[in-house]
Order: sequence, then C-alpha cells, then structure tokens
Amino acid sequence: MNNEARAKKRVTLADVAKQAGVSQMTASKVMRNTGSISEATRDRVTAAARDLGYVPNRLAGSLSSQNSDIVAVILPSINDTIYGDVVRGINEVLRPHGYMTFIGENQFDTELEEDIIRSVLSLQPAAIILTGGINRSEAAFRMLKNWQCPIVQIWDDSKSGFDGSVSPSHEAGGALVAQHFVDRGFKAPAYIGAELSKDLCAARRFDSFKSKLQAFGVVPFEVTDEALPRRGETGQTLVARLMETRPETDAIYCLNDAIALGALSWLHDNGYDVPNQVAVAGFNGTSLLQVVRTRLTTVDVNRERLGQVAAKAVVSLLNGEDIAEQTVLDTQLVQGNTT
Amino acid sequence: MNNEARAKKRVTLADVAKQAGVSQMTASKVMRNTGSISEATRDRVTAAARDLGYVPNRLAGSLSSQNSDIVAVILPSINDTIYGDVVRGINEVLRPHGYMTFIGENQFDTELEEDIIRSVLSLQPAAIILTGGINRSEAAFRMLKNWQCPIVQIWDDSKSGFDGSVSPSHEAGGALVAQHFVDRGFKAPAYIGAELSKDLCAARRFDSFKSKLQAFGVVPFEVTDEALPRRGETGQTLVARLMETRPETDAIYCLNDAIALGALSWLHDNGYDVPNQVAVAGFNGTSLLQVVRTRLTTVDVNRERLGQVAAKAVVSLLNGEDIAEQTVLDTQLVQGNTT
Repeated sequence: MNNEARAKKRVTLADVAKQAGVSQMTASKVMRNTGSISEATRDRVTAAARDLGYVPNRLAGSLSSQNSDIVAVILPSINDTIYGDVVRGINEVLRPHGYMTFIGENQFDTELEEDIIRSVLSLQPAAIILTGGINRSEAAFRMLKNWQCPIVQIWDDSKSGFDGSVSPSHEAGGALVAQHFVDRGFKAPAYIGAELSKDLCAARRFDSFKSKLQAFGVVPFEVTDEALPRRGETGQTLVARLMETRPETDAIYCLNDAIALGALSWLHDNGYDVPNQVAVAGFNGTSLLQVVRTRLTTVDVNRERLGQVAAKAVVSLLNGEDIAEQTVLDTQLVQGNTT
Repeated sequence: MNNEARAKKRVTLADVAKQAGVSQMTASKVMRNTGSISEATRDRVTAAARDLGYVPNRLAGSLSSQNSDIVAVILPSINDTIYGDVVRGINEVLRPHGYMTFIGENQFDTELEEDIIRSVLSLQPAAIILTGGINRSEAAFRMLKNWQCPIVQIWDDSKSGFDGSVSPSHEAGGALVAQHFVDRGFKAPAYIGAELSKDLCAARRFDSFKSKLQAFGVVPFEVTDEALPRRGETGQTLVARLMETRPETDAIYCLNDAIALGALSWLHDNGYDVPNQVAVAGFNGTSLLQVVRTRLTTVDVNRERLGQVAAKAVVSLLNGEDIAEQTVLDTQLVQGNTT
C-alpha cells in the first residue's frame, strides 16, 4: 500500500451524525454519554458509529498520530509463551527508532478484540501490529481500515486486508508433521486440539495435517473439544480421552507445544513409552522446551524473527516506503526425542 | 492513601518555565521540539522538566484520566512466563468494570522504565499497576508521585511509596528453601543466579537463603554472573561452572524456575541423579512445570491471585475507598521430585 492510498479520510462525528439523521451536537452527546437523549436516538447514533467505524478522538485534534511514539501490539494472550519472543523481536527493531510498544490481549474473543481495538485507536498509536487468525468483527475491521496509521498483521497467513502481513505457513505446519509421521511409519496417527473455532490458524494446521495424511490413504483419528481452554492441562484431558477411545494410536499431533507437553505428561504418568509406543509432536518450537529433559518434536517458528520483520515493515511504512504485502517465513520440523 | 491526599496538583508547563527561568512560550517550544532555541536553554528546560517530573499532556486538558478506560501494567518482560498469570488475574477483575489493560515492558532497565512511564502517563491511564524490584530513577519515581491516578506496585515487598503494594514475601522465598535443604539433610548447598544487581527481589531471596543457612552454620557456595540473561540457557551455563568448581554440591537453589529448568537439563544430560546426587529448587511455581515429567521443587507464588488483589485495590481506589498500604501474600514450598 502506498502513501497516497493511506491518506484516506478519517470518519468524523459529522459523518456519524449524518448517517444517524441527527445533529452533530446530539451525536456528540451520545458519544460523550452526557445530556438527556432518548434511547431510540442513542441506539441510532451508536449503530451509525459502529457501522462507519468511528473512533472518538481523545486528542481533540491537538496532535496527530504522526507525533506518537507508541506502537500498539495486539496478541491473543501473553500466557501463550510464544509471543514473548515475538515482542522481543519487535522491540529490538522499534526501540532504536524511539518507539514504545504497548501490548493488549484479545483472548481470541471477537467482542473483546473490538473493544481493545477501539481503546488502541484512541491512544493515537504511530502504528499497529496485530495478530490475525481470530474471528474479527466487521466493526473492528472497519475501524482499522478507516484509521490512518500503518497496520501490519502477524501470525495469520491468510489475506490480511492491511498494509502487510508476516507469518509462518500454517499449511506447512500441518503438512510437515503429517509427512514426518508417514516417514516414521506410523500407522494410526491422531490429532488433539481445543477451541479450533476461535484459533483459526490452528484449525488451518489441522486441515493441512488431515489432507496430507489422506493423500497417503490415512485418515487420522481426532479428539477435539471446543469447551476446553488452549493450555497444558487440556492436553492431559484430551490424550486420556484419545487413548481410551483409540488405544492403538501410535502418533499424536497436538494443536501447539503447550498441549503437547500436557499430553506427554499424561502419557509418562500412565506408563506409555514415548516415542516407541506412541509419538508426540507439537507446533511453535517454544524455547522453554529446549532446556528440559523432554525434547519435543515440533515445527519451529522463528518467533523473534517474525517480530523483527513485522517491526521493520512498520518502520518502512512510517518512512513512507512500500513493503511486501505478504511475507511468509520458513518453518521447519525439528525432531526431538518424542517421535 | 486517601482521596484528599491524591488531589495533589499536577506539575504544569508554567512550573517548568518558572524553574528554568524562561517564558512559558519558550518552555512549550522546547517540549514540542519546535522553534529555534539555544542548546543551553533547551538543556535548562529539559532538566527542569525532568527534575519536577513534568509529563507533556497530550490530551490538552480535554479529558481527565477519570474518563480513561485504560489501566497500564508495567512488567519486566512478558518472556517471564510468571506474568501471564498475573495479567490474567488483573483482567479477571478489571474487565467486568470496563477497563482495558495495556502492558509495557521495562526489561529491568532503569532508563527504559523511565521512558515507558513517561509514555504511559501521556496515555492518561485511569490507574497504573507496576512491578517493583527494579533500580528506578528518581525522575521516574517523581513523575509517578506527581501523577493523579491510583498506582499499585506489585511483586516487590519493600516499601513502595505508592498507594498500595501487593507481593509475595521474597524473604520467605529464600528462607523456605534454606529450611527445606536443612530438613532434607543436604550438607553442601549452592546458589546460582544472574543479573542480581537489576532484579532486586531475586537478590533479596538470595540474601534470605544465605542468612537462614548461616543460622544453621552452613555457608552456601554461590555462582552468579551479572553478564548473563535471566533465562533457561543461563541455568545450564551456571550449573556447569558450579559442578566443575564444587563437585561435592548436593543441593542447588536457583534464581527462578526458568533457570532451575536449565540447570536440571544440564544435570540430566551429564548423568547426574536428581535428587539423589544433587537436588534442585526454584522460585515461582511456574504453571508449565506442572505438566512435564520433571516436577520442580519450588516456592509457589499464587500469581493469578496477586493480579486479582492488585486489580481489586485499583478498583477500590477508583471508587475513592481506602486500601491496605501493603499486602503480602502467602507463599509456600511445593516439593516436587527434584529434592
């Protein structure tokens, strides 16, 4: 996206008032939550604001976002250890340029992401780096598109609609493990995962894992649960269900490394020989796992580099330079001692 | 701190101009980095601003922080997995009240913390939750003290100087492990750590560990390195040095769980029998460790609860209620299979 295209007009209160068919004063009162306004009018103004992607401008026009030293980073959760490295990469690049990063969490929650984006925009950030792979509301997308600062999406490798995107290939993430399972001669592979309706990138890895195996005439067994959280304990629960239902399972691909660790823990506690009886693989290459006795087979994503590339794209955009619309970083399978 | 005390006067540009002995227009030009001003004058104004703890007010007085829905959280690094749980606890309490949290990192760096605090204050947050245990600059402390919003310090159990503090007891963190080592009959205990001149809470745990052992007539051996980062790989490096220098070591207390994991990894790889030949203990109770084969002996800090208590203090302060100046949460030793 070039500079000209970015010089789009910000949605103003006047636009909201016009669409709602009220005076600007009335629209302003609704936005500031003051004065006595009928509920019907209030609803009409709120709907118009949401529809147009209007964001109240706290700075009252006194400073534009070009003067801001803030880059907002929106992540699912800092509990996901993978993002620590991403943010480190971002800061390595942005700090020498004088930018401060602030991090907001969306918890893979559509409504929460919309609220966070509204808050982020009211900070007038110089730029925004946000993770994709979430069910984003139309209103959230519109607010971002109407905004004037550079926006780079990370993690998600589908079309972003923003200035640029930097991600691993989730298709490769699933296919590499499927190929590895076939190469190792596993006959009864399975998949365990949770909240796949929220974590769209994980769902894409799973689809790719299935397709690749099916090309070899193998249909993986799957145990997924939408009600369980995406964390270690869930790996324990899911693998217990899996081994009860399909005791012949000889290889398990897990949604991510945290869930793989939980699965490994349950397998060890229940006397399974890993990898000779059942193998386990994850996704992320979480750094903590490099220093424990169990060396998980995983698909390594160079998370620090991902952060660096995204931040460099932001700096280029702030300098008025063009950037690649999509950068897909290499991912590779790292075999540990669990397959 | 009560409401009256919080109604302190914010430092204005006029105060800065007066102290620098220049006109308000000149001070304003320096702050906005415009106009032609001599370097000497510029330095004088900047020094006065820093001295008084002046923060440029981006909102140009249009909205006070009472209208903000932002609570700023300042942490050392989201790479420290412990803070994920703290932030989860904070959000559980604040979100139902309509507050959004934004996270900034200080990397235990004095200058960076000052910059982050300046940025945070310019966002006009409703409240600030910040970690202590860092070498804080006088200027940073003054900016915070001059600010009008509720400020609660977490993690550090020394006097905060802010509205309130919520923390574990780091003295207990060191003493509990020393007592445990004595109870288990270890004769040659040691300590490994890094960056203790920056991580003041870790330094306090180490001091307490030493004092407690010395009360039993035992002097622990120590291997510390100020040049190495506080992470897993450092545990590998330090334990290698330790076992080379003091092969008779039979128990090791580590700065935190991440470093303990690194140490365990090296010990396993080098054929040591843990815990029969050498025992290992950490600090934090990092949740990831509950689901791997190695169950580290550690001092558990209820991090989620810590976040909840800090956030409740913030909500009370925002409602004009008094809070306890200091809350020290219980910590307990959790024995795993490494001691």
